[in-house]
Amino acid sequence: MALKGFDHLVVRVKDIEAGIATYRDGLGLELERTDESEALGIKQAFFQLPGGGFIEIVAPTDPDSAVGRALEKRGEGIHTVAMEVDDLEGTVSAMRDAGMQLIGEGGPQVFVHPKSTHGILLQLTPRS
Amino acid sequence: MALKGFDHLVVRVKDIEAGIATYRDGLGLELERTDESEALGIKQAFFQLPGGGFIEIVAPTDPDSAVGRALEKRGEGIHTVAMEVDDLEGTVSAMRDAGMQLIGEGGPQVFVHPKSTHGILLQLTPRS
Repeated sequence: MALKGFDHLVVRVKDIEAGIATYRDGLGLELERTDESEALGIKQAFFQLPGGGFIEIVAPTDPDSAVGRALEKRGEGIHTVAMEVDDLEGTVSAMRDAGMQLIGEGGPQVFVHPKSTHGILLQLTPRS
Repeated sequence: MALKGFDHLVVRVKDIEAGIATYRDGLGLELERTDESEALGIKQAFFQLPGGGFIEIVAPTDPDSAVGRALEKRGEGIHTVAMEVDDLEGTVSAMRDAGMQLIGEGGPQVFVHPKSTHGILLQLTPRS
């Protein structure tokens, strides 16, 4: 079991166009692509980092989506820290045994609850 | 000018021993060292990631320290995202020209203000 390193950050923003302007023009990152998920109620923009990994910004299209509710409650800022793992199943199993509260076990996206990490929604991303 | 990739995360916790227990025993990270800064009013613990980069947890020893005040105001969670840059001076200059609000320019630690990044205190870390 091990977290290998950082994979990506997800940043919650109010407005996707304003977010793109900041991350592309202000911070100088390369906008790789934009997307929209009706299921999740969000617009997304992805910025690839030259050294590996990426930053994703998300803005709600539905105020009742998870991102919309988090924005309402906590404002703009980091939504998720995604870390790369070698062995997802083994890592999840070891964390569960250690008493960590997991979200989405068995599904495509597994997270450690912020209550278990001192305030970070930690996504476990299998090495691609 | 460019942000190259993730260097480290700083996580704000109430109690350094509880934080160490979580990150070492719960998440399975390797505790590399602990430290204390009287100047900053914090205790620190550093966890090296096998794939590169690290996670630092910080707990205030002084409630009036920057970390102590942030903990009081916003609770536990991410304090800083540190990203690696190739050319600190050029990056700072380009970001300033793009209207980003910088903190600590010319000093050993340069940050982009959360107001300029949609809620992230972004540290610019020269490639070591």
